[in-house]
Amino acid sequence: MDKILRIKMQGSGDPVVSVENLGEYAGLGGRAMTSMVVAKEVPPDCHPLGAKNKLVIAPGMLSGTAAAMSGRISIGCKSPLTGTIKESNAGGQAAQVLARLGYAAIIIEGKGNGKDLYKIFINKDGVKVSVDNGLKMLGNYATVEKMKAEFGEKVAIISIGQAGEMKLPAASIACTDMEQRPTRHAGRGGVGAVMGAKGVKTIILDDAGLSNRKPVDEQKFREANREFVNGIRKHGVTGQALPAYGTNVLTNILNEAGGYPTHNFRTGFFEGGAKISGEEQARLMTERGGQPTHGCHRGCIIQCSGIYVDKNGNYISKQPEYETVWAHGGHCGIDDLDKIAVLDRMDDDIGLDTIDTGVAIGVAMDGGLLSFGDADGAINLLKEVEKGTPLGRLIGSGAEIIGKVLGVERVPVVKGQAIPAYDPRSVKGVAVTYATSTMGADHTAGYGVATNILKVGGFVDPLKGEGQVDLSRNLQIATAAIDATGMCLFIAFPILDQPETFNALVDIINAMYGLNLTGDDVAALGKKILSAERDFNKKAGFTKEHDRLPTFFKEESLPPHNTVFDVTDEDLDKVYNF
Amino acid sequence: MDKILRIKMQGSGDPVVSVENLGEYAGLGGRAMTSMVVAKEVPPDCHPLGAKNKLVIAPGMLSGTAAAMSGRISIGCKSPLTGTIKESNAGGQAAQVLARLGYAAIIIEGKGNGKDLYKIFINKDGVKVSVDNGLKMLGNYATVEKMKAEFGEKVAIISIGQAGEMKLPAASIACTDMEQRPTRHAGRGGVGAVMGAKGVKTIILDDAGLSNRKPVDEQKFREANREFVNGIRKHGVTGQALPAYGTNVLTNILNEAGGYPTHNFRTGFFEGGAKISGEEQARLMTERGGQPTHGCHRGCIIQCSGIYVDKNGNYISKQPEYETVWAHGGHCGIDDLDKIAVLDRMDDDIGLDTIDTGVAIGVAMDGGLLSFGDADGAINLLKEVEKGTPLGRLIGSGAEIIGKVLGVERVPVVKGQAIPAYDPRSVKGVAVTYATSTMGADHTAGYGVATNILKVGGFVDPLKGEGQVDLSRNLQIATAAIDATGMCLFIAFPILDQPETFNALVDIINAMYGLNLTGDDVAALGKKILSAERDFNKKAGFTKEHDRLPTFFKEESLPPHNTVFDVTDEDLDKVYNF
Repeated sequence: MDKILRIKMQGSGDPVVSVENLGEYAGLGGRAMTSMVVAKEVPPDCHPLGAKNKLVIAPGMLSGTAAAMSGRISIGCKSPLTGTIKESNAGGQAAQVLARLGYAAIIIEGKGNGKDLYKIFINKDGVKVSVDNGLKMLGNYATVEKMKAEFGEKVAIISIGQAGEMKLPAASIACTDMEQRPTRHAGRGGVGAVMGAKGVKTIILDDAGLSNRKPVDEQKFREANREFVNGIRKHGVTGQALPAYGTNVLTNILNEAGGYPTHNFRTGFFEGGAKISGEEQARLMTERGGQPTHGCHRGCIIQCSGIYVDKNGNYISKQPEYETVWAHGGHCGIDDLDKIAVLDRMDDDIGLDTIDTGVAIGVAMDGGLLSFGDADGAINLLKEVEKGTPLGRLIGSGAEIIGKVLGVERVPVVKGQAIPAYDPRSVKGVAVTYATSTMGADHTAGYGVATNILKVGGFVDPLKGEGQVDLSRNLQIATAAIDATGMCLFIAFPILDQPETFNALVDIINAMYGLNLTGDDVAALGKKILSAERDFNKKAGFTKEHDRLPTFFKEESLPPHNTVFDVTDEDLDKVYNF
Repeated sequence: MDKILRIKMQGSGDPVVSVENLGEYAGLGGRAMTSMVVAKEVPPDCHPLGAKNKLVIAPGMLSGTAAAMSGRISIGCKSPLTGTIKESNAGGQAAQVLARLGYAAIIIEGKGNGKDLYKIFINKDGVKVSVDNGLKMLGNYATVEKMKAEFGEKVAIISIGQAGEMKLPAASIACTDMEQRPTRHAGRGGVGAVMGAKGVKTIILDDAGLSNRKPVDEQKFREANREFVNGIRKHGVTGQALPAYGTNVLTNILNEAGGYPTHNFRTGFFEGGAKISGEEQARLMTERGGQPTHGCHRGCIIQCSGIYVDKNGNYISKQPEYETVWAHGGHCGIDDLDKIAVLDRMDDDIGLDTIDTGVAIGVAMDGGLLSFGDADGAINLLKEVEKGTPLGRLIGSGAEIIGKVLGVERVPVVKGQAIPAYDPRSVKGVAVTYATSTMGADHTAGYGVATNILKVGGFVDPLKGEGQVDLSRNLQIATAAIDATGMCLFIAFPILDQPETFNALVDIINAMYGLNLTGDDVAALGKKILSAERDFNKKAGFTKEHDRLPTFFKEESLPPHNTVFDVTDEDLDKVYNF
């Protein structure tokens, strides 16, 4: 992982491919790589769909090694959805394969010519960029089938669906999973639109003939990894809850906690919650012969993903994640798991962020375009996106835009990005993250839910303002660092609770690179990443006034706890005091 | 004009009407009134469609008097289009009538109940607010017909069309003209959406039994007004060009100057320009029996408006203004005056800002939704708005949103508001105003075209950066003050060139109010207004990074002069150094 692949799309001429040394980017991975490249090379005032924006794809520091859970790939750019810097990461096979190929980053620059669609094939012998207009307006599933036919059953495939080609603000980038299906998405912030603007449909990664990256100190690496794996397996969340029920284990938990945003954030409890819970999903999949426990990439030992099948045992989609089930479920008043799985499949195929799309549909329901609970209406809206009709494009543009177009006042977004599945009024730690994250509303940027609800890393009362700013700050710093490693964020549960597991992670990095980092160095890395991102956003015009939730969260109390979001603006402004 | 009418829409209960003394708002008019009320009473972080936003309707300081040209009404709020403070002003009869009724402002607060539509009738005996759901989803023309039938042929009527009811970001507020037609619009910034959010469809103003406001010093007032009228009549722009050809006299002028933005700002010259010019329009109307020279309100002596008729002499619309002809014409590659008049009529009827709507259609053409030059396609899009389809709502949401939805990079907006009919690269004085105005892109906020192109108030080379910042600053200050008086902005031409005409205006104010203001006091008023507006915007999250043009104006040169916009960011940041 000692080189950078730079591909310049030329508009009128052929793409120019170059391979560079890491230079000042040496040692960076994942979000550290994407954010440092974007902060240095992308003008903050550029148009996100223009030639000056860059799409940066980077495996984590530990990707491509034997370290467990190291399969996350980071994708960064200036976001068409938020106008901020963006890093969105995904599981699947891409990170491991790209890292084994030796690339610390792919940087795609310039702009497509608006006509041709390119595919990029990378293997040990080099890089081939070629036009393939037969892929035009194909969904991710069909695209992957074509690439499998051309490149075989072992490659990892990154691709965009119709949404990315149409440059929709909620377009995602798909990565294939272990079954070579396009189910793992860098979903948030419209990264797929940037790939579409570059004219790149798919990137095929082939690591045939290559093996895992070698640690500097192999024995220490193996020992540290063993300790790390033990730590993950012995923690209740990563060892039991997630494997058994997937991320959707959260539906019942959040519903019971009164923090499950229902009917576009009107109440914190959804009557139909149990029907779409992880427990019900696991029961159903066991009954039907689906797969409720399954990993999204090789080296995953948590196995929180799954395979969702219909009544006849036929594959519909990967097991929808909690936030997807919520966005298409309780948020829209839909309590039918099968319909939600169809929506998940369509999102994955069209290449849409399930959160911004689901929230947009709920806002459209609020605006009278269809009724809450109308699952078939929601499915029809996604068909419109697939066809590229104006209505469909509107849905694929995310919640903020559809709110403006339909004249809806209740639009749950921060910096243009939809607030996910935890109500700010009753899970206040993650709400501080929504408000202040460099990414727009993003639960993964500092998952206060852990400490507010799951009592991981201590306990801060979710209903009270006290302590949330410190909680969010610490989580945002830790998360930025974890996002640099290529580690799945769920390792945060054991490392927050178990010092020995955190130390094992640091030891893995040290053994891999021959370093002597301490916990403080990890925190310093997180701070460095956040500072670079925040500086970019400042130059792009973002101020503390943008680090705010929509006012209705401060004014309307949320049943059943009847709380409002009451962390003061002054306190929100302290999140970046580090 | 010694009282304020406050109407609180209650959501679930009946509206509450109260009449107040002016208090701290004493002496304010027009934009000074609207901006001071909004700055003081509206939280900058509120949702523009929410209960905390206020719609402020204020005649100018001199409205309702015998002063020539004093018929502008200002409408202010937080803008749903831009998120900034907003003042949009219109001609027609409303200002004069409201001022005679003695109201220095109507402030509409709270929020409608989402079901009922209200009409507000105001006469010398008081105020009546009543539900009239028979007006639902009527256009402005039909609404006015109904109100005429109910209240007679002499009332002035303020109303919104379907766009305002749908709370679209480009929705305008219509005011009736001397023929009691809804042709004079507070167009920009979505003020109609705010009126719609309040649940108010129309305001009927009846000044029966009332007469003009009396000056403190009647003789001095008469003399000053006579001098003022002389000054207007002797100036070439206001005495000759505007009466003869209307504002559309500018088409040939800007086209010749290479500053006429064509095909979504691709070139500065439109081949079809002469066919849609003011000269051609006047010829055609003379031939058909339309009216090329006509005033939009009683007391107008410039007579730049007109009446546009079809081949058979039947009324289509008021004579479309230059910016309307441009937005639907050259910007969209349409060179058919009759079609443009139909589009103008539809905009007025549906209640849409002609600039943001036309620019949105051009951006949609750029995005492939229809072809440049497709006039019937443009008409069909407006029919979609009228019907309230998702596509129609999208068009009525303005250029920025449709650009995002269609993935178009070339979107000519500042702070979300469409750049009007003068290309920033070859009319750089007004471009500085676009970038820095508190209102978003707005030529009327500091009409650099006057000095760049018309050589009024001196001459600053339109193609060069030098001097444009000072020019824009001075014009923005002067304009803010003029917008407070209720005077038509076109008086700026003579008062910039003729000191005696400027002095006459100051004398009119002094005679009206018994004051001893000087020119410096007028400038101080302008600065005070701008400072209050800018302070509001700052609290709403706007920074110097928002005082910028889209980057393509800096990067792509504009034929025929092949200039780019090259006023530096540093210089733009000096506009508010006063």
